[in-house]
Parts: sequence; structure tokens; C-alpha cells
Amino acid sequence: MRHLIGIISLKTLVLANVDEKIENIMHDDPIFVYTNDDQEEIAEVFKKYDLLALPVVDNEKRLVGIITIDDIIDVIEEENTEDFYKMAAVTPSNDEYISTGVYSLAKKRVLWLLVLMLSATFTGYIIRRFENALTAYVALAAFIPMLMNTGGNAGAQSSTIVIRSIVLGEISFRDIFKVLWKEFRVSIEVGIALTGLNFLRIYYMEGYGLAIALTVSTTLFLTVVIAKSIGGTLPIIAKKINLDPTIMASPLITTIVDAVALFIYFYFATLFLNIPA
Amino acid sequence: MRHLIGIISLKTLVLANVDEKIENIMHDDPIFVYTNDDQEEIAEVFKKYDLLALPVVDNEKRLVGIITIDDIIDVIEEENTEDFYKMAAVTPSNDEYISTGVYSLAKKRVLWLLVLMLSATFTGYIIRRFENALTAYVALAAFIPMLMNTGGNAGAQSSTIVIRSIVLGEISFRDIFKVLWKEFRVSIEVGIALTGLNFLRIYYMEGYGLAIALTVSTTLFLTVVIAKSIGGTLPIIAKKINLDPTIMASPLITTIVDAVALFIYFYFATLFLNIPA
Repeated sequence: MRHLIGIISLKTLVLANVDEKIENIMHDDPIFVYTNDDQEEIAEVFKKYDLLALPVVDNEKRLVGIITIDDIIDVIEEENTEDFYKMAAVTPSNDEYISTGVYSLAKKRVLWLLVLMLSATFTGYIIRRFENALTAYVALAAFIPMLMNTGGNAGAQSSTIVIRSIVLGEISFRDIFKVLWKEFRVSIEVGIALTGLNFLRIYYMEGYGLAIALTVSTTLFLTVVIAKSIGGTLPIIAKKINLDPTIMASPLITTIVDAVALFIYFYFATLFLNIPA
Repeated sequence: MRHLIGIISLKTLVLANVDEKIENIMHDDPIFVYTNDDQEEIAEVFKKYDLLALPVVDNEKRLVGIITIDDIIDVIEEENTEDFYKMAAVTPSNDEYISTGVYSLAKKRVLWLLVLMLSATFTGYIIRRFENALTAYVALAAFIPMLMNTGGNAGAQSSTIVIRSIVLGEISFRDIFKVLWKEFRVSIEVGIALTGLNFLRIYYMEGYGLAIALTVSTTLFLTVVIAKSIGGTLPIIAKKINLDPTIMASPLITTIVDAVALFIYFYFATLFLNIPA
């Protein structure tokens, strides 16, 4: 048999009356975990109930061991390390960096770099599609890094915050519209600040024409708004369809936002600068 | 008085002989923390010694309380959340996202976005500096997103791994050359894979001329190598000069690498395409 029927702390035991029966002072509906439970789920149980130790049972509910909280701290740090890695497009690993071989490190990085490189290639096609605009106004090229970077950063901020909130159990799918509405309003405020400063710089300080200043400003504002909406919702959607939300972090969001930013940019350029598309 | 002179576990106490004196069975050189110690440092002590509780003393070493490990788990998760935020260019916060106001969220994001936007503006100046090259070969513009993205991602991978290793105490300043040498070799392997695939695509599949294919490939390879060197070492240097290594994460590294990538790109473009700089 050896079934788990209850737990008792040493403190309760020591303070109990000498002739008290164990069954009267034990917790008879103890929290326990199975031998084949995932260590991440067990860490969640520890966090949820503020426990110091948990009994472990096999499939027939026979007690086979205990897990103590000091092991769980290592698990929590491992899980965090994995999240940091995944969010930087690195295949997760818990080997110490300094003792891992070069080939093994390269293998964990090259796949995602290839995928993202090919995605960014499609962003390049947007530029080729609007080569007319660029030929007519080569000055447009100078704003591409700023637009891509700011869009990517704005989106990465949102996705990182939302991913972390999902991991900590603070956000679930039913919050998606609340998040979208919140990110929308945040992006309006942030967008106004960024666009305002940028317009001043381009139009007044650097003396570009109004058409270029308006093209860049409109793009910047819309990009920030769209970036934050995409960054805030894609991790939630990923989680909902049983994908790991951490893949919707900075690298992938940046690639998506870059394409959006460049498309908006050249769309408004052809509009404001009267260039035949 | 009330000085901390030793600790004893309940288990030791229960199992001890009934007429044993406490001073003979206690640990008389206990680990302890001060009331004004930083919670992050205390979490480190718990992790290092696998403790369940720690005595807390005031400045006169009088015992004033204990900290138990279940509180420390919350501290560890808070510290990780802060690192995630900082590495995504968000001012750290431990308020739950869903209950934080829009203005407060916007304020935590706008400052870094402004700083990074202005930095990216300087990257734009590199493009203006080489406007001749772009005017002569407008096709060059189509590769800018791919080069910027791949460089940024390659650098962000390295900086994230190194930052995490610093936080976990696995890397310190004396490892800087070991890290640099390792990142250099990793970047060679990764760079060959990325550049090879990219050359095939540009030269054979898309039919660009050899000069353009060589310009893009050389830039891609050098950018990956430099990105990984910068991403691997800047966090270590930041830590050494008492800056928070997490600021040397994806957003800032990406901005730096973008500038490097574009400079190399146009440098080789003027070289290989015979354009007067």
C-alpha cells in the first residue's frame, strides 16, 4: 500500500499532546504531485501555496519521495533562463555558457537567425516594390533606420510586458481586448511624444520640406500604434492556440513591425509626395 | 543585548538528548543578514547556501526577525521581471500590468524610446552620407532591412546570453577575453551559414550582379561577427564600470549594430561598385 493519506509538520508534531493520535492532528487532504509532473508545474504549486515541501506520489498514489523548496528555486531560475533565451531567438539551454562548446552554441542560434533573415528579406521586397518613390526622393532612405528601430522597440516593449504577465499568470485570453485597448491608449500617448519631437527635428531643425516631414511623422505615429497592438496581442493569441508565447518576443515582432512600417512609409510617401506608385 | 549568537534547527532540537545544553548543539557561526540589506542580495545568499530561513539583525547585531524562503521566491520573480523589463527598454516595475494606468505605463516606456529614436537618427545620417551610392544603385536599399535585422538579432542573442550569465554569477570581468574569443568563433560559424544562403539567393536565385551579391554578403558576414563581439562584451564592460549590464540588451545593441552594418554596407558598396564616395 504506502498510500499518502496525510501530512504533518515537525512543529505540529513537537507541540502536540504526547498521547494525541497522528490521524487527529495531520492534514488529511494534502497537496501532492506525481512523479511524472513537469517541474515547471510543480514550481507553480510551490509559488501558489507558499509551501516548503511537497510529497511526491506514483501513479497509484503511493508516496515515493518529497521535493523541497530549495530545489524549486533552481527550477524557477532555469525556467527564467529559458524564457530569456527564447525571447532572444536562442534555442533554450541550461548549460553554463562558459563551458558550452562553440559548435553547440552556434547550433542554438543559427536556426532562428536564418528564419528571421528570410522574413526580413520579404521586408526588402516592400522597398523594391516602391523603388520609384526612393529614386525620386532618395532622402527617404535616411529615415528607414529610425522608423524600423522605433517601431521594433515599441512593439518589443509591449510584447515583453505581456509575455511576462502571461508567464506570471496575471493575463489570460479573456483579457485580450482589455490589453488591446490599453496598448492602444498607451501608444497614442507615446506616439504623440515621439512624433512631436521628430517633426520638430525634421521640419524645423533639418529643414526638410513639409511633405517629407508629414510622411515620416504619419508613418512614425501609425507604426508605434500598430506595433504596440501587435506586440500586446500576438503573445496572447499564441498562448491561446497552444504556442509558446515567448516566440512572440522582440525578434519576431520586430520583423513583422518592420514590414508594416515600411509599407506605411512608402504608401504615404507616394501619397504626400505625388509619386506614381 | 539580544545578540544573535547561534542557530539551531527544530529537527536538531527534537532529536537532541534531553539534558544536552543548547550551546553544544547550535551552529555558533550562523549566516545572517542586516535589516538594511538589499532583498536581491539576500536572495543570492539563499540560493548560494540552499537555506530555508535566515536570521535578520540590526546594526548592533541584535536579532530582530527572520526571513523565510517562500518570501524569497517572490523576490526572485520580481528581480527577473525587472530584468525582462530593462532588457526591453522599459523602466522596471512590479505593478501588475492589468491594474496599472495608461499614463503610468506610457511614462515607463517613452523615455527609452526617445533615446533610442535619437540614436537611430544618427544611423540615418550614415545613409545620407552615402546618398551617392544609393542614388547610383537604388537596389541597395532593398537589403537594408535584412542587414539591420540580422545584425540586431545576432547581437541580441549574444548580449542576452551574456547578461543572463552575469546575473546568475557564471561570468565575471576576468572572462571577457574568453567570451570574446568564444563569440568570435560562434559568429564565424553562424556567419558562414547565413552568408552562404544569402549569397545563393541574391546571386543565383534573384540574378543580382556579382558586385551587389559580394557587397551584401561581405557586409552580412562582418556585421554578424562584429554584432556578436559587441553583444558579448558590452554587458561585461557595463558591469565592470558599475552600470547595470541589462541596459546592454537588444534595444541598445541593435541600434549600435545597425550603424555598424550600414557603415560597412556603404563602404563596401562604394568599393565594389566603383561609386565615388
